[in-house]
Amino acid sequence: MDIELQLAVESLHARYAQALDADRLEEWPNYCTENGRYRITTAENEERGLPLPVLMAEGRAMMRDRVQSLRHANIYEPQRYRHMISGVLAEPVSPGLVKSTANFLVIRIMQDGATMMFASGRYVDRIALSAMQYEERVVICDSRRFDTLLAIPL
Amino acid sequence: MDIELQLAVESLHARYAQALDADRLEEWPNYCTENGRYRITTAENEERGLPLPVLMAEGRAMMRDRVQSLRHANIYEPQRYRHMISGVLAEPVSPGLVKSTANFLVIRIMQDGATMMFASGRYVDRIALSAMQYEERVVICDSRRFDTLLAIPL
Amino acid sequence: MDIELQLAVESLHARYAQALDADRLEEWPNYCTENGRYRITTAENEERGLPLPVLMAEGRAMMRDRVQSLRHANIYEPQRYRHMISGVLAEPVSPGLVKSTANFLVIRIMQDGATMMFASGRYVDRIALSAMQYEERVVICDSRRFDTLLAIPL
Repeated sequence: MDIELQLAVESLHARYAQALDADRLEEWPNYCTENGRYRITTAENEERGLPLPVLMAEGRAMMRDRVQSLRHANIYEPQRYRHMISGVLAEPVSPGLVKSTANFLVIRIMQDGATMMFASGRYVDRIALSAMQYEERVVICDSRRFDTLLAIPL
Repeated sequence: MDIELQLAVESLHARYAQALDADRLEEWPNYCTENGRYRITTAENEERGLPLPVLMAEGRAMMRDRVQSLRHANIYEPQRYRHMISGVLAEPVSPGLVKSTANFLVIRIMQDGATMMFASGRYVDRIALSAMQYEERVVICDSRRFDTLLAIPL
Repeated sequence: MDIELQLAVESLHARYAQALDADRLEEWPNYCTENGRYRITTAENEERGLPLPVLMAEGRAMMRDRVQSLRHANIYEPQRYRHMISGVLAEPVSPGLVKSTANFLVIRIMQDGATMMFASGRYVDRIALSAMQYEERVVICDSRRFDTLLAIPL
C-alpha cells in the first residue's frame, strides 16, 4: 500500500466535503480537472446501464453554470448538509491516475432544525495525481427516491 | 504508532464493508481465517455476559451455510445496505495478531427507496496479520431491537 | 502532509469518541489540557458571533464538575451514544500546536432500542502535540434544536 497516496486521497475527499458542507459551492468545480466529469446517478440505473443521471456536468464551465442556477433558484433553501465519508480505498491505475471508491452518507438539516438522512451511496472516482483533482467523480446513490428538483452536488 | 499496520487494518475493514454493501455475501467467509469466529451480539448481552448471540459462526464452513440459507430464504428482500466505519483503533497483542476496535453505522435502503438506520455499534476484532483476515470479529450492536429474522452479516 | 501527525490526530479523536460511547465520562477531562477550553455551540450562533454556548467548560476542574452534575441528575437516562467521525483534516499552526477540523454524527440509542440521529456538525480543535490533548475543542452543531437539558459532552 502506498501510504502517502492513501492519505492524499482521503484528504481530497475531506476537503471536498468540507467545501460543500460550508456552502462554498463556488469552490466545487475547482476540485475537478478543467475537463473533469461529474455525475450523480442511482445504483439501480447504474446496474442496468441506464444513462439517466440525476445531475451531470462535463468540465468546470458546466459545473459553474450549475452552481449559478442553484444560487438563483428560489428552491434553494438555506438548509445545511453534513457529509460523512468512510471506507476510502485507492489504487493506482496508470501513471498519474488513481481510482478511488468510498462510502458516503449525507445528512440534511432543515432550517427548523429537523435532521434527516438525505442520501447514502458510494463515490467512484478517477483522480489526477498531478493536481489532486477529480478527473471523474461518479456519485452512486443507494435510493431511487431522490429530490431531483434540488440537484445539488454531493 | 505503526502507520502501515493502522492503514492495513482500515483497508481490511473497508474491503469487508464494500463486499457486504455490494451484496457479495459469498465473499464474506474469505475475510475470516479458516477457523475464524464471527458473532453478532447486543451491548446489553455483552455487558451481562449472556451467551446469546444474534448470529454466530465458527469457521468458514458455517459462514458459507449461513450465506446459503440467506440466499434461499424468501425473507431475503433485495434491500441495500451501506456501512459507515469510523474511529478505527489497532494495537498489536502478540506477534502476528492485532486487536482492533471501530464504530459502525449500517444504513438500510428499502426497495421503495426509504432509508433508515439499521444498526449501530462497534466491531471488536482479532486480526491475523499473515493473511490480513479476521480470526475473530465480534459485532456489538447498540440496540436491543434487532431484526433477528433477517440475521445478515454486518 | 505529515503522515504521523495526521494519524495521531485521528487516533486522538477515535479514543475520545470511544470513551464517550462507553460512558466513561470521567475520562473526558483527561483528553483536554489542564486549562483546556471546551464549548458546544450551534452553527447559527457561531456564524452570528453569538456567545451563547450550549455547554462551556474552561479547564479540567469545570469539566469534572459537569460530569458530576450529569451523574447526579435524574435526567441522565441510560441511553447509549455512538460517535461517527469523518473527514479529519490537520494542519500545524505553531510549534507544538495543530489545528484540526472533522465532521461528526452522533447517534442516540434509547433504552427501548429506538435509534435516532442526535447531533451532527463539526469539531474545530486546537491540539497540544506534547501530550496529544485538546487545548480547545469547539463542537459546532448543525441543528438549532438541541436538547439543552441533557447537555452531555459530544
